[in-house]
Amino acid sequence: MSAQSTWMPRPEMAMAAGPSSYLRAEEALATFRNAMRRLAGHVHVVTTCLNGERGGLTATAVCSLTAQPPRILACINLSGRSYRMIAESRVMAVNVLGTEHEALARRFATASGADPFDGGERWTQAATGAPLLELAQASFDCTVDQMLMTGTHAIVIGEIRHISHRDTGTPLLYVNGEFRGAGPLDLPFAASASEQASR
Amino acid sequence: MSAQSTWMPRPEMAMAAGPSSYLRAEEALATFRNAMRRLAGHVHVVTTCLNGERGGLTATAVCSLTAQPPRILACINLSGRSYRMIAESRVMAVNVLGTEHEALARRFATASGADPFDGGERWTQAATGAPLLELAQASFDCTVDQMLMTGTHAIVIGEIRHISHRDTGTPLLYVNGEFRGAGPLDLPFAASASEQASR
Repeated sequence: MSAQSTWMPRPEMAMAAGPSSYLRAEEALATFRNAMRRLAGHVHVVTTCLNGERGGLTATAVCSLTAQPPRILACINLSGRSYRMIAESRVMAVNVLGTEHEALARRFATASGADPFDGGERWTQAATGAPLLELAQASFDCTVDQMLMTGTHAIVIGEIRHISHRDTGTPLLYVNGEFRGAGPLDLPFAASASEQASR
Repeated sequence: MSAQSTWMPRPEMAMAAGPSSYLRAEEALATFRNAMRRLAGHVHVVTTCLNGERGGLTATAVCSLTAQPPRILACINLSGRSYRMIAESRVMAVNVLGTEHEALARRFATASGADPFDGGERWTQAATGAPLLELAQASFDCTVDQMLMTGTHAIVIGEIRHISHRDTGTPLLYVNGEFRGAGPLDLPFAASASEQASR
């Protein structure tokens, strides 16, 4: 067994306590990030539109909330342009990516200055105005119902106005810092990772 | 391409509008559930402890929220015993399951009357008192920071007090109504599903 265990203080408390505790806070943050890599799941591009301008970002922290009324939530970093656009326009679309969308996921995860929509994929415009990826595994067009501020991120609750979904294709996953697809239960993770490396 | 598209009104609005709209609301709910199957990701057992009694449920709607302070959120159905126990004890642990935990996931997803902890796995007790699955891919022991009520579910925000994680094993996924592991990107979903069926 290879379990690792680290007590995690609140980093800001440790920082206030002085230099040696500051190191512990750095360690705590690294442990959090390593463990969270085990938790990452489907990959989404969350899009929005404000005054005719399109915005979007790659996000894994998205989940379904309630079926009645149909609601979905996305955790969005407060420091980005997409958050400011969503907060003002009050619209967002959640596009669930397939394994063919790895390059798209990387493009929307990087602030390179280039337009991430400009990559050859087909986009349509949802009823709310938000861009929908035409071959997404699923797309949820939403108006923003509530936004809850929690430190560095907003929990944006979307009330779903329109859904499209495909019945074919494989959802794109992000696990342990790698893009993956869904495989059979008995495929050892290490073996499949090396198979992937030898392609 | 096999995209399906359905306009989704708010079900409770459609219900108020009369019988034909009521059917549309039923349809909307089915569309939501089908599309959400494309969104499901890692499988977790969220546990708690109240007055020495253990409780827990299987959940996919869990995601990381902020790294500083380290917080995680879980969407928990308000109608269950686990929700009531978490609300009273203010503690929860999120256990991220591996592919070897399919039976455990099914047990915690069913209210059979039998004790779901009674299945041969090893559990320890976290600092908060919540049960930790010893061979989980990762475990996050939390005190409840906030609970936000949204219709049928609470968004429970946990402030992480302790993390353990493994560096081996494959996270268990729930995709399109099936338990899966993470596979290489070029494994066609349909092919891997039939491989699995022929085992």
